[in-house]
Amino acid sequence: MKAAYYEGNRRFSIGESKIVAPGPGQVRMKVAYGGVCGTDLHIFMGHMDERVKVPQVVGHEAVGEVAEVGAGVTDFKVGDHVVLRPTDACGKCPTCERGDINVCPSINFIGITSPGCFQGSWTVPAHLLHKLPDSINMVHAALIEPLSVAAHDVRFGEVKAGDYCVVIGAGPIGMFEAMVCQDKGAKVLIAEVNPARVELARDMGFEVVNPSEADLVKHVMDATGGDGANVVFEVTGSQAGATMMTKLPRTHGRIVIVAIFAEPKMIDLRTILWREYTVIGARNYVKQDYEEAIRLVAKGTLPLDKMVSDVRPLERMQETFEEIEAGTANFMKVLFSAGD
Amino acid sequence: MKAAYYEGNRRFSIGESKIVAPGPGQVRMKVAYGGVCGTDLHIFMGHMDERVKVPQVVGHEAVGEVAEVGAGVTDFKVGDHVVLRPTDACGKCPTCERGDINVCPSINFIGITSPGCFQGSWTVPAHLLHKLPDSINMVHAALIEPLSVAAHDVRFGEVKAGDYCVVIGAGPIGMFEAMVCQDKGAKVLIAEVNPARVELARDMGFEVVNPSEADLVKHVMDATGGDGANVVFEVTGSQAGATMMTKLPRTHGRIVIVAIFAEPKMIDLRTILWREYTVIGARNYVKQDYEEAIRLVAKGTLPLDKMVSDVRPLERMQETFEEIEAGTANFMKVLFSAGD
Repeated sequence: MKAAYYEGNRRFSIGESKIVAPGPGQVRMKVAYGGVCGTDLHIFMGHMDERVKVPQVVGHEAVGEVAEVGAGVTDFKVGDHVVLRPTDACGKCPTCERGDINVCPSINFIGITSPGCFQGSWTVPAHLLHKLPDSINMVHAALIEPLSVAAHDVRFGEVKAGDYCVVIGAGPIGMFEAMVCQDKGAKVLIAEVNPARVELARDMGFEVVNPSEADLVKHVMDATGGDGANVVFEVTGSQAGATMMTKLPRTHGRIVIVAIFAEPKMIDLRTILWREYTVIGARNYVKQDYEEAIRLVAKGTLPLDKMVSDVRPLERMQETFEEIEAGTANFMKVLFSAGD
Repeated sequence: MKAAYYEGNRRFSIGESKIVAPGPGQVRMKVAYGGVCGTDLHIFMGHMDERVKVPQVVGHEAVGEVAEVGAGVTDFKVGDHVVLRPTDACGKCPTCERGDINVCPSINFIGITSPGCFQGSWTVPAHLLHKLPDSINMVHAALIEPLSVAAHDVRFGEVKAGDYCVVIGAGPIGMFEAMVCQDKGAKVLIAEVNPARVELARDMGFEVVNPSEADLVKHVMDATGGDGANVVFEVTGSQAGATMMTKLPRTHGRIVIVAIFAEPKMIDLRTILWREYTVIGARNYVKQDYEEAIRLVAKGTLPLDKMVSDVRPLERMQETFEEIEAGTANFMKVLFSAGD
């Protein structure tokens, strides 16, 4: 079985996947598909070299089946379809003691600080696995990790049926948030400037405003009788998004910070005060968010086919990351097939 | 009875208080004391001339007794000690329909957009009055309005017994927040750079760090076993405060925005995301916050004597506002006595 190794300096090499026998409490997975996250692009571009020890297999959005179980593992058997929740908290700090394991300051993010899923054989902690229904679409199931991020964000947004939600930024996470909001019975508006993403989101049936072409604030106010949105998701990481996010909610509205902002931004705290907004950061996911994402994929009604731009063999990793960095391909989500 | 009229352009004149007979649903108060708010200073400095029709009596932090009741008023009788909650919401907009009357976009703030309390006789809506216990200290009761702001802020901070709270900025509202937090059984640290305010806060028994002289972040981390504060109140309106506020909370900590920021500030959204903070704006108060403030004043255990810098006759309004603007007197809270 093959593996793609990040070698540093925008290079991947293809080699053999190391078959690591599972220790106590571990499971060895045969990986079916691994999805590319924005984090993987940051790794490729060298932004995370202090955390990634090269050569290393990266990737953390994976689905596969159980190939071998270690001592003491009773919840899984060979052949089970599984997804990994790749955030392994320390379990000992005050944050973990409060149960807030997704924000543990000493979190081990598997696929960043330890070997990832862009390989055929992957040995992982059993306590981070979720079992999937046998009938699940395995390509769709490869989207469970980012869909869990969205489920977490929407949960923090306290979105409920009838709410008017605005998602600023229609990358994969923004698109998944729109889907989860819609599943809750909320109305969703997507704001996006990239024409290809505007088209894709419209093709999925979403209402989209391009704020470089239309007055987004007016659109939201007109749609809500001048009241404003219940919940706004900031998923761009840009100053334009950070400026827009305080203009759209109604009094006591919620703003969920989802994007990773590389540096501080100018924020209108006066309006946050004046309208008593709640601004909340939402990062990663916990067990219940994974369970929600699995439920949504198993339900089979989300337009997930349109989220998968391509499924490629591991051997095409180098060219794929070059295409993603160039931004010309307008990928939404690329999956790698680990092969046999 | 006298009244102080704001004439525009940093001038007050002294004249007669107009005795306005209370209409249906109104009460005429004999004002005992009226406190000076930062908003009144903004009015004095001309910052709010578009909202204040001169000549106008301003002031909104008042205590007094009922002198006369209008038709249909059954909850109050002549001689009752009362305080006014000076925010009169429109009652008709979507915000009011949700019950969020403190952030009604069409709010009438009595003492800004209509005549205020710096006079002997004041006719006001009965539905905004709160009756006080007969035994209450009337000088302390003049502090109920700003104490209600603090009660509102602490409620939005979800402060509970055992919490570690940091108040950034020890003006009147910050000091009251510290008192309300302490009443809840929380530990409180005050951060303040003004030496006179540092001294006053210490004199009241509070722990104070001057961040221009000591490492505030280290102090908070040392005091919390490296975990951070549960709740941080930003009450300075400064970039320094806005930068500090995201450095102090623990994961899932709360940041309450209390100060009115004149313009947008650079905010570290990455840390808000990373540690899943909740940043919440808290403005004005509602009925339950007034009830909490009245309970606290009636309890008689807060160090309110030290909050009252001076009690002066209305005739000294001009010189007092000049002193406050100059900043040399280091007033905490000045009250005006309306006289007989």
